[in-house]
Amino acid sequence: MGQPQQPEGAEVAAAATEAGTGATGASATRPPLRVGMVGYAFMGAAHSQGWRTAGRVFDLPLDPVPAAICGRDADAVREAALRHGWASAETDWRALVARDDIDLVDICTPGDSHAEIALAALAAGKHVLCEKPLANTVDEAEAMTRAAEAAAARGQVAMVGFNYRRVPATALARRMVAEGRVGRLRHVRVVYLQDWLVDPQAPMTWRLRREQAGSGALGDLGAHIVDLAQYLTGERLAGVSALTETFVRERPLPGGAARGLGAASADPAATGQVTVDDAAVFTGRFPSGALASFEATRYATGRKNALRIELNGERGSLAFDLERLNELQYHDATEPGEHAGFRRILVTEPEHPYLDAWWPPGHGLGYEHTFVHQARDLVHTIAEGRRPDPSFADGLHVQRVLTAVEESAGKNSVYTPIAADPAAV
Amino acid sequence: MGQPQQPEGAEVAAAATEAGTGATGASATRPPLRVGMVGYAFMGAAHSQGWRTAGRVFDLPLDPVPAAICGRDADAVREAALRHGWASAETDWRALVARDDIDLVDICTPGDSHAEIALAALAAGKHVLCEKPLANTVDEAEAMTRAAEAAAARGQVAMVGFNYRRVPATALARRMVAEGRVGRLRHVRVVYLQDWLVDPQAPMTWRLRREQAGSGALGDLGAHIVDLAQYLTGERLAGVSALTETFVRERPLPGGAARGLGAASADPAATGQVTVDDAAVFTGRFPSGALASFEATRYATGRKNALRIELNGERGSLAFDLERLNELQYHDATEPGEHAGFRRILVTEPEHPYLDAWWPPGHGLGYEHTFVHQARDLVHTIAEGRRPDPSFADGLHVQRVLTAVEESAGKNSVYTPIAADPAAV
Amino acid sequence: MGQPQQPEGAEVAAAATEAGTGATGASATRPPLRVGMVGYAFMGAAHSQGWRTAGRVFDLPLDPVPAAICGRDADAVREAALRHGWASAETDWRALVARDDIDLVDICTPGDSHAEIALAALAAGKHVLCEKPLANTVDEAEAMTRAAEAAAARGQVAMVGFNYRRVPATALARRMVAEGRVGRLRHVRVVYLQDWLVDPQAPMTWRLRREQAGSGALGDLGAHIVDLAQYLTGERLAGVSALTETFVRERPLPGGAARGLGAASADPAATGQVTVDDAAVFTGRFPSGALASFEATRYATGRKNALRIELNGERGSLAFDLERLNELQYHDATEPGEHAGFRRILVTEPEHPYLDAWWPPGHGLGYEHTFVHQARDLVHTIAEGRRPDPSFADGLHVQRVLTAVEESAGKNSVYTPIAADPAAV
Amino acid sequence: MGQPQQPEGAEVAAAATEAGTGATGASATRPPLRVGMVGYAFMGAAHSQGWRTAGRVFDLPLDPVPAAICGRDADAVREAALRHGWASAETDWRALVARDDIDLVDICTPGDSHAEIALAALAAGKHVLCEKPLANTVDEAEAMTRAAEAAAARGQVAMVGFNYRRVPATALARRMVAEGRVGRLRHVRVVYLQDWLVDPQAPMTWRLRREQAGSGALGDLGAHIVDLAQYLTGERLAGVSALTETFVRERPLPGGAARGLGAASADPAATGQVTVDDAAVFTGRFPSGALASFEATRYATGRKNALRIELNGERGSLAFDLERLNELQYHDATEPGEHAGFRRILVTEPEHPYLDAWWPPGHGLGYEHTFVHQARDLVHTIAEGRRPDPSFADGLHVQRVLTAVEESAGKNSVYTPIAADPAAV
Repeated sequence: MGQPQQPEGAEVAAAATEAGTGATGASATRPPLRVGMVGYAFMGAAHSQGWRTAGRVFDLPLDPVPAAICGRDADAVREAALRHGWASAETDWRALVARDDIDLVDICTPGDSHAEIALAALAAGKHVLCEKPLANTVDEAEAMTRAAEAAAARGQVAMVGFNYRRVPATALARRMVAEGRVGRLRHVRVVYLQDWLVDPQAPMTWRLRREQAGSGALGDLGAHIVDLAQYLTGERLAGVSALTETFVRERPLPGGAARGLGAASADPAATGQVTVDDAAVFTGRFPSGALASFEATRYATGRKNALRIELNGERGSLAFDLERLNELQYHDATEPGEHAGFRRILVTEPEHPYLDAWWPPGHGLGYEHTFVHQARDLVHTIAEGRRPDPSFADGLHVQRVLTAVEESAGKNSVYTPIAADPAAV
Repeated sequence: MGQPQQPEGAEVAAAATEAGTGATGASATRPPLRVGMVGYAFMGAAHSQGWRTAGRVFDLPLDPVPAAICGRDADAVREAALRHGWASAETDWRALVARDDIDLVDICTPGDSHAEIALAALAAGKHVLCEKPLANTVDEAEAMTRAAEAAAARGQVAMVGFNYRRVPATALARRMVAEGRVGRLRHVRVVYLQDWLVDPQAPMTWRLRREQAGSGALGDLGAHIVDLAQYLTGERLAGVSALTETFVRERPLPGGAARGLGAASADPAATGQVTVDDAAVFTGRFPSGALASFEATRYATGRKNALRIELNGERGSLAFDLERLNELQYHDATEPGEHAGFRRILVTEPEHPYLDAWWPPGHGLGYEHTFVHQARDLVHTIAEGRRPDPSFADGLHVQRVLTAVEESAGKNSVYTPIAADPAAV
Repeated sequence: MGQPQQPEGAEVAAAATEAGTGATGASATRPPLRVGMVGYAFMGAAHSQGWRTAGRVFDLPLDPVPAAICGRDADAVREAALRHGWASAETDWRALVARDDIDLVDICTPGDSHAEIALAALAAGKHVLCEKPLANTVDEAEAMTRAAEAAAARGQVAMVGFNYRRVPATALARRMVAEGRVGRLRHVRVVYLQDWLVDPQAPMTWRLRREQAGSGALGDLGAHIVDLAQYLTGERLAGVSALTETFVRERPLPGGAARGLGAASADPAATGQVTVDDAAVFTGRFPSGALASFEATRYATGRKNALRIELNGERGSLAFDLERLNELQYHDATEPGEHAGFRRILVTEPEHPYLDAWWPPGHGLGYEHTFVHQARDLVHTIAEGRRPDPSFADGLHVQRVLTAVEESAGKNSVYTPIAADPAAV
Repeated sequence: MGQPQQPEGAEVAAAATEAGTGATGASATRPPLRVGMVGYAFMGAAHSQGWRTAGRVFDLPLDPVPAAICGRDADAVREAALRHGWASAETDWRALVARDDIDLVDICTPGDSHAEIALAALAAGKHVLCEKPLANTVDEAEAMTRAAEAAAARGQVAMVGFNYRRVPATALARRMVAEGRVGRLRHVRVVYLQDWLVDPQAPMTWRLRREQAGSGALGDLGAHIVDLAQYLTGERLAGVSALTETFVRERPLPGGAARGLGAASADPAATGQVTVDDAAVFTGRFPSGALASFEATRYATGRKNALRIELNGERGSLAFDLERLNELQYHDATEPGEHAGFRRILVTEPEHPYLDAWWPPGHGLGYEHTFVHQARDLVHTIAEGRRPDPSFADGLHVQRVLTAVEESAGKNSVYTPIAADPAAV
């Protein structure tokens, strides 16, 4: 079959491919949005899929261009660039941020580097997409929020990567709450259950070290459910009472050098200290008077990715489970009791958020589509000069909740109020 | 079709019917257990069904005889006796307790009268079955527990009516925990969700007045889930941190006179004060280090009777939902990941607790069967001189947990330890 | 605790107990309905529970009296009478039918004796309740239907025991179809899946011999689903095309003598021929043009009692699964697609059929309640002189369908029309 | 943000982009597989996503290059090329097939053109991927199969696009069957339920015209379930008995000109004849003696994409529902009955087919991933010179089943045997 040759038919993407931009869903008339991404692990792969695909599926006002990917290991980042379709590679995020052919910096690193990169990128005039949690401390998150607000005045957008807002079912839930279908809110119950630490011999990772991860299940899973609860209700938590626990305090080091764990140990008995929480359970109040309960854990044996949220209000209830992400449960309390019941809305129809651009009715989406939708929404936000949703201020409030959880857990679970910011969720 | 006449065939139950005992499943050789029941509302009907049916289905060492039913309204109690098959009626529980043809007093009244009746019955030498919660205060529950212990020395049995231990699926779950199938426990999450108060115009009832009900959702629903969590885990809660809430503080009085609400009001605008909690959310710790979360509410729109409990341990998980009471979910973490998953055990097979006496495989039971099983278990406990399960001491510990929940809720959710009793759960 | 004595309180059921009738839920003013039941195995136990309980729960116009039970083994039937609360025992059904203190004959025997007993009982002026299938042949069923029609003119009621019409969820489904909520019908799909024959070493039973059982899965399970499909749709099947199969043609004889299998074999290798179908799959048409599919099997590994039916129509769909018998799935096609979905109606509310007499919302019923409801409905039918539902004519049509299934299966699955009777379903 | 410029960092995809090939996941060392796709509607979009993504996620031996897309409308196909990332566009499939820079022809057109294009592509030395159903007639499918066999001798691969074999859950099911976990097969029941024709006013489309679509629900949905049933069991259907129905025989023409429907009608009352089946129900036998039942319909109100299949065997059962495509239900009949039950395997773990290349545990995939997996598998098949799975012979057997269904339906549902081919499934 020989070597690739010039195509013989009408060349349709000539301008784009000649420019070497790898534009996705390019048209001659759409301006590009050149993305530089820092980090290329799990989140980097997911974001790459989002940037590659958004313009293929949605009609976008800007054309996302995967321009540069950045990581410290030159070989690995070059390989990641090839794999994930980025046009160039960098080994120093500062160099990436300094490039004038980058419009947006997408931060997919562990939480300890979010603040530094985001502040630099905003200072350099870039738009920023920052993975969650926004930061490892409230101080960092406050600085980032202030910078984002200043940058907003210059037309820059700074968004946090709470991708679970972009599941069609959660987006539909938010719409239904806004339409009044839940009514006066009474209860919110949310759990995020995983089980990858159940085995006490599961090895150490950077996610179990406070200096990098900030916290454990709390920052990883808890951040998602706090944001989702606030997003769906349209309210910000007023206070929390919490218990946290580290069930297994020492774990074997992995055979090879893990990032941030120093050199690989030749000693099979070598162990590392787990310095973050394994699980957090907490209760809280919303300003409307609703009660909330939360649980984030990596020890829920058999639960792989069970982010479950339920809202109960005077007019109805909504329930969602990430393990069945194409479904939303809805109970309409205004119906006659004889025929009432939780209905399973298969959120795969053209009437549903994001869905008219995808497949025929009933053809479900997966986890990664949240990143496609995130890319789509961010492109629109930038092009239309709108306020980002979720903003860094939203990320800051989540960080305040996480900090209040840790404070409460450290003070005998005493109810710990959370400062309200003027900005809306 | 004329009047009833003497049957012409072999008369099979002559002795029993001549004695007018209404014996259930009687045989000539089985001694009777003559039951006197106080109360004839919802719980009275359920207990009646239990007493009537147990001897028809199970081979019992004693023959339960529904001897007397007691209530304050003479006409109503006589009608209830006819309806539910009790041989005689009383209008004063003291008279019932004094009768020497009663072996067991079954207390189905609101919580404010449990202590007085139970103490009198024990003093009169009767066995006692007391509905949950054991009492409205820890002091009462302590007195009852002391009396029960003294009576035990005289061969009397005193049991609390935590009927949800008698669902085949929960009994199977307990057996599987005892077999080590859950292993080292990490998490317990329990909710009991109902929705009959969602409508702010739902009328007052004795269940919403502290002086009769003791507490609201907490004592009614919370007592069940605390007991069930302790029963399944085999551990007693070490402490709790709690939020409680009364969402609707004033409700219309019902048109007619409700028990304990005084005379019916002619004023349609007349309202009564709700003096109990509408909902309680709390977290806790078990002595083994496991974390627990609880929620009891009457405002979970669309949830009718959703008592849900899940246990996660190092070797497996179990999950149960009372709305699907013939099923138990089980995840076996010792299986290869490729084929692992939560399995739905249809708890309707002869290998399962209580089931060999019932129907063929797959033919499910209902709510009321818990009372048949309770009657069965109590008869065996009495006949065999065993320790009751659950004992008044178990009921006392539940009462301590409920009290600790209220204390914590009153003190800014501070973690409130619960005194451990020497006796096992 | 001594011997049973006369109760000291007000004697409430004196008349009834003196008469030795064992009346259930008796009142002085209600005339009795004296039941004589033939058969005391599984169905006998279930019917007993129904007769004992109906008057305790429902306000009935007649008072069901479990007057006599009949079986061939004198000791066993006497024991069954004691166990299940029947006042007398007979060993010859002819004697039972001849008794003038019996108002209704309840036939719980295998299908080969239904016709003879029912014809005799109707001739003797009794009401009749006959277990399904109505008979083993169309000829028998026709004779029974003619006799029932003649008896109806004399005020006698003859009903078939299709108890699955009495599940609250199926009764609700029928009501919703009648209200037009399904609309123009397009599809009916029904299966009844059990698995008790999967093991080729499962022993012989009378249910596997054509001369007693008439047919196998077809008559046992198929009869139920044909009746239920016709009941819910309000239509009678117009024709069928069928495949049947006997997967395991020889099975070990049980160790002891089984009814109808002759003397117990001392030879462990002794086997018996299976002369009925193990499974039947068939398709069909309803007069309205709807397509139907059916499957009845005892080889559906892991399915214990999965009677599942779904109706699809222009305005909506309904779905039911006997393994979750307190639930009905309903899809309302008139709702906006955005919020539409199959809802799970928890059929446990006072608005639902039969439920106002039972427990509070969300407290589910079980399999046996279908027999309580059957007893209730039959009592009303008799007292009010109404047409029985289902009538023997309904049972006859089911028999015609089963026969057509066998005919089609015997003739290369050719579509086999079914004669329509003038009477409605 | 100005015009796109040359990236400043290390250019990682220079070779590929310079060549204008739009290579996906390119590496310098991997030879390309240049794809030319005919058709750009729903299937074209899905295949595009597959070709774009496969090399980004999986390590492939060849690098898929979306070289050319073909359609009759020049503007529309050029737009599709830009949207979906194809390097060039053609308006005549003959020109595409003639290009020597195309290695594989991917046929995404309606069934009436499959044979002609596939035969030409095979004659031109191309590999072929052909959407299902393979053809509209058995004659065409036979010719295609013969051509594919001849081409196989020349090293060409011809595969049919039965993408539902590539759902991780169905691939896992196939593996489990092959491991003997189902054992001797007794039952297969399969339905494919959609509802987009329930409304009698839903407009005409080419899918409802026999000359283009070949058949209706049968070829569209029935082809999928016949293939999947044969794939999972490893057996080919031996015969069928069928009913088909066209519920609505006339439908409004769409406002604009639809492909193949001729010019748009200005008359709003203009209608078109539906000349295909709306639904098909059929039963069948597998050579092993297992019974099967099938249903394909577009009138299952509320069911959007419910492809459900269940296998029951002596050792276990498997069940799958496309509406919950990340799950597989498995019942292991070798376990003790006490703990047995259908388990829900969340097919999202690294041990599962295709999953190690995707996201962390519990992060589900969607419909479109079947096309990514199809591209992956086809690339491996070509590179490794293996027999394609499914082959055109597999597609031919499906076509024979569909034809037998139509024959049986036309001959009073008589059981219609299906010729067995020597080749395995």
